[in-house]
Amino acid sequence: MARASADPGVESEWREFGPLELTPILDAALDEFRESGFHGATVRQIARRVGMTVPALYYHHENKEGLLVALLELGTGEVAWRVRTAADEHPDSPREQFVSVIEAIVLHMAYRFRLAALDGEMRYLSPGNRRRYGARRKDVENVLTEVIENGVEKGVFALADPVETSRALLGMCQSVGRWYHPDGPLSPEELAERYVDIALMTVGAHPRLQR
Amino acid sequence: MARASADPGVESEWREFGPLELTPILDAALDEFRESGFHGATVRQIARRVGMTVPALYYHHENKEGLLVALLELGTGEVAWRVRTAADEHPDSPREQFVSVIEAIVLHMAYRFRLAALDGEMRYLSPGNRRRYGARRKDVENVLTEVIENGVEKGVFALADPVETSRALLGMCQSVGRWYHPDGPLSPEELAERYVDIALMTVGAHPRLQR
Repeated sequence: MARASADPGVESEWREFGPLELTPILDAALDEFRESGFHGATVRQIARRVGMTVPALYYHHENKEGLLVALLELGTGEVAWRVRTAADEHPDSPREQFVSVIEAIVLHMAYRFRLAALDGEMRYLSPGNRRRYGARRKDVENVLTEVIENGVEKGVFALADPVETSRALLGMCQSVGRWYHPDGPLSPEELAERYVDIALMTVGAHPRLQR
Repeated sequence: MARASADPGVESEWREFGPLELTPILDAALDEFRESGFHGATVRQIARRVGMTVPALYYHHENKEGLLVALLELGTGEVAWRVRTAADEHPDSPREQFVSVIEAIVLHMAYRFRLAALDGEMRYLSPGNRRRYGARRKDVENVLTEVIENGVEKGVFALADPVETSRALLGMCQSVGRWYHPDGPLSPEELAERYVDIALMTVGAHPRLQR
């Protein structure tokens, strides 16, 4: 499913997805949160899934919220890294930058759908954690907005409202994480291609393909 | 905030939003689901919120899942009605149909953000209920897809993939329900106007405004 990562310094590394690497505790917590939601999940049940005692689990993570924060930060950290790397790959072409950024977001939502679907649980975080996580999420939106505004300045894009379009596009791409399943008809790459075409339309640029 | 509904037979009734009319039990259940998620919510706590005994609550609703189903069906029923009414208002203009359908969806997500944010809890439904609810949700997507395909046939719209664009637009509009708050800077109508402009771009039509 994922491309092989031959060399960590290779170009387009942001397109390569290995398996989701989680510790056994975080892997069990992710399953538990997905099945029972944050409030329905219990540390006892997570410990049972991973074959660990509750005190042993508390040795690694402060509490249930700490587990959710760790998972959400893994997801946002990864997508933020991919998006920045994708944007940096084409500093002189706003169009290629935009294409790569949308591609990176959609690939992340599809390959990391288990993590991406957790985003809705963010509202159960305590205010401080919600603020911190919200800021990291905003990173991705800011990169996208900058890329669009840069394209407008250079006359490559023509649209009414870069900030609102950026937020709307993110909403569109994030929705992929709520329905995508690897057994479905589209690979992450095929889906990303279609979303790139749709996204190009929103900035007044011609799509790459006609199907 | 909402326009006055002078006459239920008046044109554009789908644009009018009164307060969300819920029974006291469903209102309490909605608050409880929003604060604690489906799995964290308890029938006991919902009964306490509404000042009722648990047996009295069970007289009205079968169980906790019945309460969630009732709320989700209220939301999807309302948006499906608005979208169909909006589409029927302009049978001869695919562009006006499309504008009205997007407007109806975004207005619903903003005015009914309390209900709309509940959509993510859908995955906790038992298979039968999830199937039924999924089909009702699909109604809205089908109307939007028909409107887009009709516009392509009539040469008003030009885009690569009406089905994928329809799904992507719905994801974009639904994301509004996850962040919209009436205390924010934009009214539902202002937000709908911006989303209509963005959506028009995705079907290759000119937006209405330049801001």
